[in-house]
Amino acid sequence: MNQIITIGREFGSGGRELGHKLAQELKIAYYDKQILAEIVEMTEFSKEYVQEVVENRLTYMLPPAFSTGMSLGNEYQIMQMQKIIKAQTEVIKEMAAKSSCVIVGRCADYILRDTEDIDLVRLFVYADMDSRIRRCMERAPQGENYTEKELEKHIRRVDKNRANYYSDFTLQKWGDKSNYDMCINTTNMRIDDIVPHLGKMFF
Amino acid sequence: MNQIITIGREFGSGGRELGHKLAQELKIAYYDKQILAEIVEMTEFSKEYVQEVVENRLTYMLPPAFSTGMSLGNEYQIMQMQKIIKAQTEVIKEMAAKSSCVIVGRCADYILRDTEDIDLVRLFVYADMDSRIRRCMERAPQGENYTEKELEKHIRRVDKNRANYYSDFTLQKWGDKSNYDMCINTTNMRIDDIVPHLGKMFF
Repeated sequence: MNQIITIGREFGSGGRELGHKLAQELKIAYYDKQILAEIVEMTEFSKEYVQEVVENRLTYMLPPAFSTGMSLGNEYQIMQMQKIIKAQTEVIKEMAAKSSCVIVGRCADYILRDTEDIDLVRLFVYADMDSRIRRCMERAPQGENYTEKELEKHIRRVDKNRANYYSDFTLQKWGDKSNYDMCINTTNMRIDDIVPHLGKMFF
Repeated sequence: MNQIITIGREFGSGGRELGHKLAQELKIAYYDKQILAEIVEMTEFSKEYVQEVVENRLTYMLPPAFSTGMSLGNEYQIMQMQKIIKAQTEVIKEMAAKSSCVIVGRCADYILRDTEDIDLVRLFVYADMDSRIRRCMERAPQGENYTEKELEKHIRRVDKNRANYYSDFTLQKWGDKSNYDMCINTTNMRIDDIVPHLGKMFF
């Protein structure tokens, strides 16, 4: 039976690093940015367009009134939204059917929640704001010199987009612990210290 | 440095079992009901009285208007409340100072949050309502025949009391993942499977 670990994560909490190292530890596949590429391929939309949508919110492409129920929106736009939802669902399900893997983001916990014949573990990774700012500063590409205040604003914006996209897609609250098997606060933990034990815990 | 694991838990989620087995695994002390006994000893209140308070809410003993800020309450009652808060804080701090240990409940995560010279890990254990009802049924003492509906009502009442007591004491939200280092959903996990790895993860 394929072992699938999905990882939701607050921006800057180290969720992607944890997912990547967990996949290495368990010697299983790791999917992250590849999901976007496969949605692009499946929908035949441009990469920029799909990125714009999945990094904002599903209703991003609809007229503002749609999300407040004031209008049924433009039929063409609704069709585009449905295409993205369908492609994202299919891509994630195919990944889980193919082999054991770690999947970061993209509502995978929700998409796979009732899938039979897989061993599913849903993780959520989070951390205090200070620790996330520190982490972003340590890993900033050379030449990027955001102040702490700018970074905090950026972190809050990315998280808000993730929360919106997740709730548009799943009608559930992003980060609500009842939707996950384990929530890990990386504020006082070294990811390298926990990954070997985490791997053994589930499978 | 003493290694302290505090465990907050939803009723019926297996948090106490997890804590007990973790203490055995790590060969460290385990505190649960003993905390109540020590508060009784320290305050010289009756066991029944202390139990009534800690299993309800701190403001339980105050006139109803007090908790809504309508009255300053009765001086004697406020003093009693302060005695309980002080005793609970001292008992937990003494336990943490004495040796490495697991402490279940009693706002220990909050009381110890800024304590120096200890290695603190704060866990919260939770589970779906169905799984908690099943767990309670499996472990019911002989002769106890609650229906599922009655059990659900009981579980919700105990959790509400825990949430109230925690928020009276800490001014924080009980079960809010930001107050814990790890939150563990036992719905799809066997406690025996995770305890050995959990023990190694932190210390």
